Amino acid sequence: MASPNHHLPIALSMGDPAGIGPEIILKAFANHAEFMQGCCVLGNLALMHRHRQALADFLPAHIQCVEVFALHEALRLQAGQIPVWNVTPDAPISIGEVSAAAGKMAADAVRFAACEALAGRARAVVTAPLHKKALSLAGIDFPGHTEMLQAVAADHLGVPVSEMPVRMMLSRPGLRVVLVSIHVSLRQAIDAVTAANVLQTLQVTHHSWLQLYGYRPTIWVAGLNPHAGEEGLFGQEEILEISPAVAAAKAQGIEVSGPFPPDTVFMQALQTETTPSPDVVLAMYHDQGLIPVKLQGLAHGVNQTLGLPFIRTSPDHGTAFDIAGKGLADPASLLAAVTAANTQ
Amino acid sequence: MASPNHHLPIALSMGDPAGIGPEIILKAFANHAEFMQGCCVLGNLALMHRHRQALADFLPAHIQCVEVFALHEALRLQAGQIPVWNVTPDAPISIGEVSAAAGKMAADAVRFAACEALAGRARAVVTAPLHKKALSLAGIDFPGHTEMLQAVAADHLGVPVSEMPVRMMLSRPGLRVVLVSIHVSLRQAIDAVTAANVLQTLQVTHHSWLQLYGYRPTIWVAGLNPHAGEEGLFGQEEILEISPAVAAAKAQGIEVSGPFPPDTVFMQALQTETTPSPDVVLAMYHDQGLIPVKLQGLAHGVNQTLGLPFIRTSPDHGTAFDIAGKGLADPASLLAAVTAANTQ
Repeated sequence: MASPNHHLPIALSMGDPAGIGPEIILKAFANHAEFMQGCCVLGNLALMHRHRQALADFLPAHIQCVEVFALHEALRLQAGQIPVWNVTPDAPISIGEVSAAAGKMAADAVRFAACEALAGRARAVVTAPLHKKALSLAGIDFPGHTEMLQAVAADHLGVPVSEMPVRMMLSRPGLRVVLVSIHVSLRQAIDAVTAANVLQTLQVTHHSWLQLYGYRPTIWVAGLNPHAGEEGLFGQEEILEISPAVAAAKAQGIEVSGPFPPDTVFMQALQTETTPSPDVVLAMYHDQGLIPVKLQGLAHGVNQTLGLPFIRTSPDHGTAFDIAGKGLADPASLLAAVTAANTQ
Repeated sequence: MASPNHHLPIALSMGDPAGIGPEIILKAFANHAEFMQGCCVLGNLALMHRHRQALADFLPAHIQCVEVFALHEALRLQAGQIPVWNVTPDAPISIGEVSAAAGKMAADAVRFAACEALAGRARAVVTAPLHKKALSLAGIDFPGHTEMLQAVAADHLGVPVSEMPVRMMLSRPGLRVVLVSIHVSLRQAIDAVTAANVLQTLQVTHHSWLQLYGYRPTIWVAGLNPHAGEEGLFGQEEILEISPAVAAAKAQGIEVSGPFPPDTVFMQALQTETTPSPDVVLAMYHDQGLIPVKLQGLAHGVNQTLGLPFIRTSPDHGTAFDIAGKGLADPASLLAAVTAANTQ
């Protein structure tokens, strides 16, 4: 990541094969080949073929999945050829249904992609959506990609997960949000608002941004309580935890301010034309950050993991089992994720 | 409220006289007289004159404050005359500064307005912004209008405050949100997500809406935890508290569904053109509701108290001490609040 090699391919995991992952990948390659150049799909070839068949009415006839046996082969294919590395064994899958078999395939592809990046053979990992319950049925107990990638990377480097702090960043045109915590209850999320955790989030954000974009980001920090606690009247976390973390981060040269009232900080961060706006807003919990981000629309949403030893982005939507296999899925968010991976 | 008398005036409290309340009132009357017809200002006449002087460069010369001694006199004034009922004694006030004296004036005006409505002499109360700290300095320990009006109304009816359940509703074009709790810490807000409290919020919303608009509202309920708890994985409140409340409300004939994932429910509620959307979204805590509402813009924001024995609306912004007395304040939100009060 420190010196990304733009000649390397991007490892693109297939996602849950019962969901819309394969479809958005096929559509992205078929209709936006220029954006997908250098991407290699990691997943199950038979299922990619099956999804290709299902899209017969939607894609030009010359579009086909082609088996490769190494990422770099993706760089040498002809127009219309979609490189697929078959990294997970065949199994019967029902499109649109949660299953252990599909969960296992999705997880295999993610792990494989991460290992390629960790080995220095991919310049980035882009992940199509997987399904938490399918993962869990397959005996893989991670709530999502972020935690799985963190574990794979920590294992690769031989460090405990606690020494591989990662954070989720969600992007829309005009708004980027980093979350202090993600998939925990709101009560646990409040417990996670400690000075140490907020400071760590600021450090991960600052250092990742500097590596990715080459300059120091301006960060605004949201409070936890209504009106950011109104001077301690509605909660003490701003005084006891968040403000000390902001002060410590400033002392380390991080360009950060806050905590600001949560109900206005996102609105003000968006006012980019006439008023100053930050590069990133730090949200104290999942919905505080995701509500404003999702209100900016789904089409161009990108989810990114900061703190990993490689670039990792993904579309900001789920497996959409209800529309899987019907030709209805929109590849826009995947294209945004690939573009984000390419421009870092 | 059940049969609002549109021949009655609207009682409009001046707000904190050191803030922008008087200015937005003066601008609204001066530039949008047709919207303000029937409104009578309750506050301090000397301070209204002083703000009028301060706006000499911004308002036409014939605009003047005229003293009245009863609300109904407001219905008989000539063009350019702004009716002001002097309901609070004079005191020295510094524009732009928090003070006990200004807090007391603001509170006097609110209480007076509420009493006029409770006595049946006003068809609605519209309140200009006050400042919590100024209230507190004046020895009035309410965190805001909502709680103060609830106490005045309960006292008037001779019932304890617990028997006068009220809720805050925030409106923007395309999105209305009712909050289960408001000015408490996030920890206390979680504690307030009980089946009884959620059910009471649904009942207050349903009955108030039916009285105000004459039809039964469709209500969507947000969850408390990320992904609405993901079937109990990230928190139990959806299972133990919110779903039972929704079921109980349905059994009472309330048109309600949920709990839905908080990060998408507001986004989906806004998709009004091609998809079904609710009349109201129930938010579990202050920022869950206010973040999406404020992202829809401040100009047309209306704050309304449901559950009072009279209609009460207000602009959805604060006293803005930093721009008070400078001619910069925008009366749009006040006009939206008056319009909302007029159309109910």
